[in-house]
Amino acid sequence: MKLYILGCHAATPSMKGNPTSQVLEIRNSIILIDCAEGTQVLLRKHKIKFNRINHIFISHLHGDHFFGLPGLISTFQLLGREKELHVYGPSGLKEVILALLRVGNSGTSYPLVFHELQKNSSELIFENDKLEVRTIPLNHRIYTNGFLFSEKPKDRTLNIEGVAKYKIDKAFFKNIKGGKDVLLDSGEVIPNHLLSFDPPAPKSYAYCSDTAFDPSIVPLIKGVDMLYHEATFLSSEAHLAAKTKHSTAMEAAKIAKEAGVKALLLGHFSTRYKNKNAFLDEASGIFPEVGLAEDGKVLEI
Amino acid sequence: MKLYILGCHAATPSMKGNPTSQVLEIRNSIILIDCAEGTQVLLRKHKIKFNRINHIFISHLHGDHFFGLPGLISTFQLLGREKELHVYGPSGLKEVILALLRVGNSGTSYPLVFHELQKNSSELIFENDKLEVRTIPLNHRIYTNGFLFSEKPKDRTLNIEGVAKYKIDKAFFKNIKGGKDVLLDSGEVIPNHLLSFDPPAPKSYAYCSDTAFDPSIVPLIKGVDMLYHEATFLSSEAHLAAKTKHSTAMEAAKIAKEAGVKALLLGHFSTRYKNKNAFLDEASGIFPEVGLAEDGKVLEI
Repeated sequence: MKLYILGCHAATPSMKGNPTSQVLEIRNSIILIDCAEGTQVLLRKHKIKFNRINHIFISHLHGDHFFGLPGLISTFQLLGREKELHVYGPSGLKEVILALLRVGNSGTSYPLVFHELQKNSSELIFENDKLEVRTIPLNHRIYTNGFLFSEKPKDRTLNIEGVAKYKIDKAFFKNIKGGKDVLLDSGEVIPNHLLSFDPPAPKSYAYCSDTAFDPSIVPLIKGVDMLYHEATFLSSEAHLAAKTKHSTAMEAAKIAKEAGVKALLLGHFSTRYKNKNAFLDEASGIFPEVGLAEDGKVLEI
Repeated sequence: MKLYILGCHAATPSMKGNPTSQVLEIRNSIILIDCAEGTQVLLRKHKIKFNRINHIFISHLHGDHFFGLPGLISTFQLLGREKELHVYGPSGLKEVILALLRVGNSGTSYPLVFHELQKNSSELIFENDKLEVRTIPLNHRIYTNGFLFSEKPKDRTLNIEGVAKYKIDKAFFKNIKGGKDVLLDSGEVIPNHLLSFDPPAPKSYAYCSDTAFDPSIVPLIKGVDMLYHEATFLSSEAHLAAKTKHSTAMEAAKIAKEAGVKALLLGHFSTRYKNKNAFLDEASGIFPEVGLAEDGKVLEI
C-alpha cells in the first residue's frame, strides 16, 4: 500500500496548505479519499493517471472534503472517460452533484454510480478479490464516516524447491497457493507447508477524519498498519476541539494506543499553527509511533 | 481600472493553466468575474483582500466558470464575514449553491444576495456612484452573459490658478467640480471652463466569455477601452468552435474591429495549443491592438 497525502489541512485552501484529499494505491488500484477543491491539480502534480481512479470515498459533506468532486467528475467527462466511476459518501451527495452538473447542462456519458451512506454502524461497502472497505462511523458536526481499507490475504508463495523435490505437476500450483495439500498418484499426501511459504501479511489502513475523540471506533480499527486520525488542534485548544467536534493530537494518540495500531499519522491541522512539531511532541508522549501528514508526502504502508 | 487575469484557460484546471476567473479593480472596488475551481488560492496569490470583494459576476454555469464559488463563499464564512456579498449569475445558480451548503449544514451568517439573470437582452444589473454594470447576452451552449463594466464620469478637476484669479470661495468648489458656472457677488458669471479642467475620460471594460461569433453584441460594446473576448480555438479548428459554440481568434478580432474597441484581449484558450503566439498572429491581421491573456497577468486599462 502506498499513501499520497494530497492535502492535510483544515478549512480552506491557501498558498500554504491544501484541504483534505488522499490517494491510496493498493495492489495497483488507485482510490481517492475525500476530494477538496484543487484535488484534480494535485493528482496531476503527483502524476496519478485519472483513468486509474475508479473509486472515490467521501467522509462527509463539509466543503473542505468534497468541493473538488464536481470539477473532477467534469474533467473525467472531458477526458472521454467511458468506465464506471463509483462514489461512496453520505446521503445527499448524489443530489447536489447531479444538480450542479444539470444547471450546466453537462452530465456524464460514463456511468457515474453513487453509493450513498446513512448507517450509524460499520458496514462493508466495497469488496473485490484484493480489497475490502468498511465504514468507521465518526462523531462530527454532521454525518461522517471514516473508512477502513483492508487488503485480502494474498496467495501463499510457491516453494520452488519443495515442488521440485516432490515432482508436483504445474496443474496443482493454484491449489497449493490457495493453501491446499497435494495428493500424489502414489497416494502420498504432501502437506501444504512443505510446498509453499506464508504470504506477506495483508495490510490495513484506517482513515478517520473529521471526528471528535470517540473511543467507540477502537474495536473497528484494532491493530491496523496505519491509522490516519485528525488532530485539528493541540490540547491547549481542547475547548475548540470540543466545540467544533474535532480532536487534539493527544486524543488521536489515545485512540491509536487503545487500538494498538502499528503507526499513527496525524493530519487536518488548523491553519492557526505555524509549527507542526508541537503535534508530534504532544502525541508521541502517549503513542511513540506517530508521524505528521504533510501536503505532497508519499508513504509506504 | 486594473484587471487581474487569475485564469484564462478553457475546460479543466491543470498544472499549466487555470480556468476562468478575473478581478477588476475599479476606483478601489474589487469585482470578481467568474470563479473557477482554485480561484480562492489565486486571490491569495495576488494578495487580493477577501473582504474587499463584494460583487461577483458569473457568466454561465459551466464548471470552469463557477466551481470555485462554493468554496469562496464558505471561506468568507470561516473568515467571519459580516458584509453583504452580491452574486450575479444565471437563474439556477442560487439553488445549487445553497443546496451544496445545506448538505454540509453550513450556510452563511453574512447576507448572501443572489441576483439571478434570465433576460436575453442587455440590462443594467448594478449601479453605484462610480460604476455601472450591464449584461451582454452571449451565444453559447447554455444561457450566458458577458458583462460591460463602465465607470461613471468623474468630477471635473479644479483649476487652482483659475479659482485663485477670480478669488472663488471654497464653498463653490463642489459645484465647480460638478461643471457649474459661478455667479460672483459682483453679478459677474465665471464660466466653468475657466475654473476647471476636463476629468479623465471614464473607462469601460467588456468581458465576453464564453460565446460563438456573434456580431449582435457589437452595438453593446462600441468603443470600449478593453474587450476581453474568448478565443478558444484557431481558425484551423473553426469546425470545433462552431460545434461547441466558441470563437476563433479571427472571429474575436472581427468583433473588436466592428465595435471599434481600443484594445482586444484574447483568452479562454483550449489546452490543445502549446504555443499561444498563433492566436496573436491570427487576430492581429484583422485587429492590431490585440494582446493575449495569461494566468497571473495584471493590466492597466
